[in-house]
Amino acid sequence: MDKVSLIHGAGGEMMQSLIGSVFANIKNNNAGGVGLEALDDGAAIPFGDKYIVLTTDSHVIKPIFFPGGDIGRLSISGTVNDLAMMGARPVALTNGVIIPEGFSMDDLKKIVESVDEALGEVGAALVTGDTKVLPKEALDSILINTAGIGIADTPIRDSGLNPGDVIIVTGTIGDHGISIISHREGFKFGTELRSDCAPIWNTVKAALDVGGVTAMKDPTRGGVANVLNEMASKSHVKIVIEEEALPIRQDVKAAADMLGIDPMEVANEGKAVIGVRADKADETLAAIKNTKYGKDAVIIGTVTEGKGVIMKTKIGGQRFIEPPLGDPVPRVC
Amino acid sequence: MDKVSLIHGAGGEMMQSLIGSVFANIKNNNAGGVGLEALDDGAAIPFGDKYIVLTTDSHVIKPIFFPGGDIGRLSISGTVNDLAMMGARPVALTNGVIIPEGFSMDDLKKIVESVDEALGEVGAALVTGDTKVLPKEALDSILINTAGIGIADTPIRDSGLNPGDVIIVTGTIGDHGISIISHREGFKFGTELRSDCAPIWNTVKAALDVGGVTAMKDPTRGGVANVLNEMASKSHVKIVIEEEALPIRQDVKAAADMLGIDPMEVANEGKAVIGVRADKADETLAAIKNTKYGKDAVIIGTVTEGKGVIMKTKIGGQRFIEPPLGDPVPRVC
Repeated sequence: MDKVSLIHGAGGEMMQSLIGSVFANIKNNNAGGVGLEALDDGAAIPFGDKYIVLTTDSHVIKPIFFPGGDIGRLSISGTVNDLAMMGARPVALTNGVIIPEGFSMDDLKKIVESVDEALGEVGAALVTGDTKVLPKEALDSILINTAGIGIADTPIRDSGLNPGDVIIVTGTIGDHGISIISHREGFKFGTELRSDCAPIWNTVKAALDVGGVTAMKDPTRGGVANVLNEMASKSHVKIVIEEEALPIRQDVKAAADMLGIDPMEVANEGKAVIGVRADKADETLAAIKNTKYGKDAVIIGTVTEGKGVIMKTKIGGQRFIEPPLGDPVPRVC
Repeated sequence: MDKVSLIHGAGGEMMQSLIGSVFANIKNNNAGGVGLEALDDGAAIPFGDKYIVLTTDSHVIKPIFFPGGDIGRLSISGTVNDLAMMGARPVALTNGVIIPEGFSMDDLKKIVESVDEALGEVGAALVTGDTKVLPKEALDSILINTAGIGIADTPIRDSGLNPGDVIIVTGTIGDHGISIISHREGFKFGTELRSDCAPIWNTVKAALDVGGVTAMKDPTRGGVANVLNEMASKSHVKIVIEEEALPIRQDVKAAADMLGIDPMEVANEGKAVIGVRADKADETLAAIKNTKYGKDAVIIGTVTEGKGVIMKTKIGGQRFIEPPLGDPVPRVC
C-alpha cells in the first residue's frame, strides 16, 4: 500500500496497520510509564506519587452542528473521555482550531460556547490554544484538535481484564454514529436520533470510586465491536457478550437496519466499556446508574480464559464479533 | 466582521482581535497558575513544587518539505520551543495528524522520521497521537497538531521584562519565513535560503542556567516585530532596538528586499527573544553562543521605562516598530 486511504483513518484494523507500519517506528516513544507503544487512550507519565495522563484527538466531524451536540462539545468530550479512560481526572485542555477562510464568526462563537459548557460539566479548563486559518480551497470545514492532561493515582489500562471480570457498558450503543449518518443522509425516523456526545468523567469517577475497575476504553471510531476486541487481545482473554443484554435504542436499531450498518461498529461519544471485578460488579453498576450519563448502564458480558470476542445470540447460538476494518462512514468524529 | 479571514490566522494584531472577541469569552480558562487569559506561549499548572507547562500548535505549512526541514520537524520544534519559552524542559509530546486521502505513504514515513529525529535532539518523547484521514476534496495537504508537556521550576513569562534588562536574540532573523516564501515562489538567490527550523531547548536551557532570564518569547508568526511589541506591552515597558545589531543574513535581506517583505515581520522557527538582567547579559550571551543553535546570538537592545518598541536606525534616526497586522503570507508554519 503506497497511499493513505480513508479507511486508514476509520479507527479499525486498517488504522492499526497504518499506525503499526509508520508511527510505531518512532524510537523516542516513551517518557516513563505508558507511552506510544501501548496504543492506549493516552499516555501516563510518572510524576511524584501520581501520573500525568496526556492525550490528544483531532475532530473532523461533518456537519459541525448535529442533533445532540457540535464539534466544540465533541472536542472537549473526546479528550475528557480519553483522560477518564486512563483513570485520570481531567484538569487542563488545549484547542488547536483550523478554520477555513470565510467561516461564520457567529458559528465560531457558538462552538466556543459549547466548549466552555462541556468544560464546566467536569470542572476542567481550556488553558491554551492555537488558531490557524486556511484558504477555502484548501479546507472545507473547521477542524479542532484537542489535547489534555489529567491526574491519575494509578492509570487504568485497556489491557487489564482478568478471567472472571464482568463487562459493563455505561449506556446505549451506537447513538452517535447512527444519528450522524442519519442526519447527514436526511433520514427521518419519527423521533429525531441524537448523538450521545458528553464528557463522562463524573460517571467514570463513580465507577472508579468503588474500587473494582480493571480496564476501560471508550468505544469511539470502530465502536463497541472494535473496543471489545482490543481489550480482549491486549488482556489475553476472551470476552463473552450476551446479545440480549446489549442496550440499543429502538430507533437506533431501526435506523441501523435501514442503513445496513451494525450499531456495534459505529462511534459512541459519551460511553465507556468497563471491566470490573465480579465481586464489585453490582456496586459499580449501581454507582454508574446513579450518574447523569450512566442511567442506561448494564452488564453486557463476562471475561473468560481464551481469546476473541463471542456473542451469545438471542436464539441460543453464538458468533464471533470481529473487529471492523473501520467505522463505516468518514468524518463521524 | 462576520467572517473569519486569512489574516485572522496570521499571528499579528488581527489574530489577537479574533482571539479577544471569541476565545477570550471562555470562562473555564484556568487550572491554577498561567491559563488561557495570559495568551502566553503555553499554560503553567502548579503541581507539587513544580509546574506542568502545556502548549499546542497546529502546523499547516505548505510545501510540507522545504529547505531546512519538513512539517514533521516543524511540528516538534514548534512545541518544544513553546515549552522552552515558558522555562520548561520538554518531556512528552502528542501528534494529531490529519491526512488527505491519497497521501504518499513514503512521505508520511519521512515526516515521522523527522519527528523522531527532532525529539531525539532534546530528549523528549512522542507518547500518544491520533490519525484522521479526510477525502481529498476536503483537505489539500497534511496537517499536524502537536501538543506537549514540560516541567518548569518557575515558569518564565513573556511579561517579565524590567527597565534595565537587555534583549538578546538567539540567532539570525527571518530565515524561516523568507526561505519558505522564496522556495514557494521558485526564486533562486545563488545560495539556497534555508529555514532555521529547530528544537532549541538546549540553547534556552543554557540561558536559563545562568539565572538572569526575565522574559522569553519565540518569534514565530508575526516575527520579531510582533514578539517585541507583545513583550513590551505585557511587561509595561519600552524596548529600544539597535538596527545595526539586528542579525539578518545577507541573502535573507536580499530576498526580503526583492519580495518587499520586512524580515522582522516573518516567522522564525528556531529562535528566541530573551530578556536578561543587565548584570547577567554577557554571561548569558556567552552561554547561548556556546550551543548548537545559538552561535549567532547577539544583544539587540535594551528595556527602558515607557511603552512601545523603538528602533535606532543605522543613520542615527529612530522609528517605531509596529506590530504587523499578521505574517505577510499564509501557511508559513
